[in-house]
Amino acid sequence: LTSATWGRFDVGQLSQRIDALGEIGALPTGGLFRGLYDDAWAAAVDQVEEWMRQDGLVTRRDAVGNLYGRVEGRESGPCVVSGSHIDTVRSGGKYDGALGIHAAMAAVNALVADHGKPRRTIEVLATAEEEGSRFACNFFAARAIVGQVGADEPERIADPQGVTIAQAMRQRGLDPSRISEARRDDIAAFVELHIEQGAILEAEGIPLGVVDTITGQRVWHVRLTGRQDHAGTTPMDMRADALAGAMEIAGRAREKAIAMGRPSVATVGRIAVQPHQTNVVPGVCDFTIDARHSDTVRRRELVDYIESTMKRVAAERGLGLESRVVQEHDPVPMHPLVCAAIEESIAEMGVRSLVMPSGAGHDSEIMASRFPAGMIFVPSRDGRSHSPDEFTPIEQIVPGVEALARTLFRLAY
Amino acid sequence: LTSATWGRFDVGQLSQRIDALGEIGALPTGGLFRGLYDDAWAAAVDQVEEWMRQDGLVTRRDAVGNLYGRVEGRESGPCVVSGSHIDTVRSGGKYDGALGIHAAMAAVNALVADHGKPRRTIEVLATAEEEGSRFACNFFAARAIVGQVGADEPERIADPQGVTIAQAMRQRGLDPSRISEARRDDIAAFVELHIEQGAILEAEGIPLGVVDTITGQRVWHVRLTGRQDHAGTTPMDMRADALAGAMEIAGRAREKAIAMGRPSVATVGRIAVQPHQTNVVPGVCDFTIDARHSDTVRRRELVDYIESTMKRVAAERGLGLESRVVQEHDPVPMHPLVCAAIEESIAEMGVRSLVMPSGAGHDSEIMASRFPAGMIFVPSRDGRSHSPDEFTPIEQIVPGVEALARTLFRLAY
Repeated sequence: LTSATWGRFDVGQLSQRIDALGEIGALPTGGLFRGLYDDAWAAAVDQVEEWMRQDGLVTRRDAVGNLYGRVEGRESGPCVVSGSHIDTVRSGGKYDGALGIHAAMAAVNALVADHGKPRRTIEVLATAEEEGSRFACNFFAARAIVGQVGADEPERIADPQGVTIAQAMRQRGLDPSRISEARRDDIAAFVELHIEQGAILEAEGIPLGVVDTITGQRVWHVRLTGRQDHAGTTPMDMRADALAGAMEIAGRAREKAIAMGRPSVATVGRIAVQPHQTNVVPGVCDFTIDARHSDTVRRRELVDYIESTMKRVAAERGLGLESRVVQEHDPVPMHPLVCAAIEESIAEMGVRSLVMPSGAGHDSEIMASRFPAGMIFVPSRDGRSHSPDEFTPIEQIVPGVEALARTLFRLAY
Repeated sequence: LTSATWGRFDVGQLSQRIDALGEIGALPTGGLFRGLYDDAWAAAVDQVEEWMRQDGLVTRRDAVGNLYGRVEGRESGPCVVSGSHIDTVRSGGKYDGALGIHAAMAAVNALVADHGKPRRTIEVLATAEEEGSRFACNFFAARAIVGQVGADEPERIADPQGVTIAQAMRQRGLDPSRISEARRDDIAAFVELHIEQGAILEAEGIPLGVVDTITGQRVWHVRLTGRQDHAGTTPMDMRADALAGAMEIAGRAREKAIAMGRPSVATVGRIAVQPHQTNVVPGVCDFTIDARHSDTVRRRELVDYIESTMKRVAAERGLGLESRVVQEHDPVPMHPLVCAAIEESIAEMGVRSLVMPSGAGHDSEIMASRFPAGMIFVPSRDGRSHSPDEFTPIEQIVPGVEALARTLFRLAY
């Protein structure tokens, strides 16, 4: 593969497709929303399928609506898959997920044009769901592929309007009783290109990232219960201020994450007090803590510190503590052979890359539970993501597509 | 006045009246609500007027609906007034405000029974509004009496349903154009008995408080603006977390109040973040700070510290700061002669009292702008107030009524 190859890859078409897909689900208020099985989602899947066919791929959809576009290999056996998700967050941008589908289509176009039929079958994959933005069923599509969708999920999980996943599937002609048929055992490797969704590559001036780990995470929902008191008549030393307790816990969690250094993070994203009156000491404070680290031992250190700090602060301040872990997973390493293939490909291009953890979750972390998986990051301007401001200029996308093509060449030719 | 006098004062009747008035405006969900000019308010005023007439007082209502019950004195000249407000907060208790009316009625009953006609005219006063709980017009009734109601208030201020004060007045047969007629210049002294609404008397085991000052206050509405970022992909050192800034400001304000000691207080009662998602660093944080001190110089010290801390923290963290002072007043001293009369009366009873500031606002702070005013506090169990849990046992009320009667005797006989 030489740079001349990239004459065969139509950068203009890639740009046009990014913009065109970004129009599907566009909101009048800015940004876009494609929720699993909604109209915009269905239109987007149809559009991508049409492009795949134009590119000469053989398409099919599985039991949960994942879309595959296939180039048959010369040999039988497991295939190499590349892609990302087609759904979006509410008021999201046109790169998160979608860019991984565009990049896979463009890379396969370039490979086939230059090298013909691959040895191994290559499939471009548009996964149906990753964000959990319509239904609280994050990674539904990838979980179906690895066989991790709970039997009760389709009937149990409903969107804010009360429509269950099962009902929404039937509206799209899908049969919830057949979800297990989406499971695959024939994937040799999964490679996902994605925007970084952070500002590290931009700040370092490095064009491409190679993800070595997808960060481990714990999310708590915490309730502190103190005593609602008059803000004028209750001396400071007689208070049991639930918000003051929450602030101490949050402050210490942040300080710990800062002291541990990158990539340790701890975030309080939601906070609410009762009774929420200017002149009343808060009696109840509900808040969330989201703590992440890409190293298993260090994640445990961070999580243990926060856990013990919550208990200590609540006890010292005489506050009731209820905490519930609502999300928990260890870091997920990407497969060393896939990482090596990506790193070698980028080195071949003469481009700098940064080996880095992903602070966000991705389809790859689910795929990695059964298949060798790896990820390529392209920069996000100002680190913006999950926002209409999400942007990566085409000049920063092209090296990512080239790195992906070279990686797929290594894995499939 | 000897303790024998109290044979003439019907403690059972006082208890019954407290309970009966506490039923008017009772909510099915617990607690009560009497908003200015609503049905419960009107029923309560009618009930108190009936009791006043039973007690032999001559009643009248003024232009804003304040209810007076009068015992004519032997001499002409300014009169001595005692009472408190008849409105309540939402889901409030039956003591805040109401007890000052009950106590004044009981004290006047005892005085007239024992000593006949006073030298100076005594009036029991049920003020129409103090809490600002239906309309944001706190102290409306007392402000009418001292002539401080703004000409635009009746038409400008509306309740949550959009009904203006003027409309509500007309529904009760009151004419908003005549508010100025409620103004008085003939009050020799105003004495208000009130529950403490704090737990200092209870904690100290002292039965009665003599208020020397009503605390000074400043309330800010603050908005910090940082940058909304992904909670997983944005390193701690690249964040502009609006909530983290708010927490530092709140923490330092609290620490300062604690370091200054009683009666310095600083409270964050309301806080809200945007976008309020578990996995997003808050880009905007709105919160309130309520800071109080009963000493003018020390209040200024507290307020200046908080003001400069807000600016410093916002600058250090690269956050935008908008802060707005929504309430501000210097401490209001009670009149030394009225305080002395109260203290001497309590000393005469052989009961301990604590000279203390009031951390809450009261009708007396408005009355004090034109008339000599003073306050007697009775304990609040557990400091509970503005809550259905508000409670003062009758045994703790009786000494307060006796102190009030002795004070009125000093001032009017």
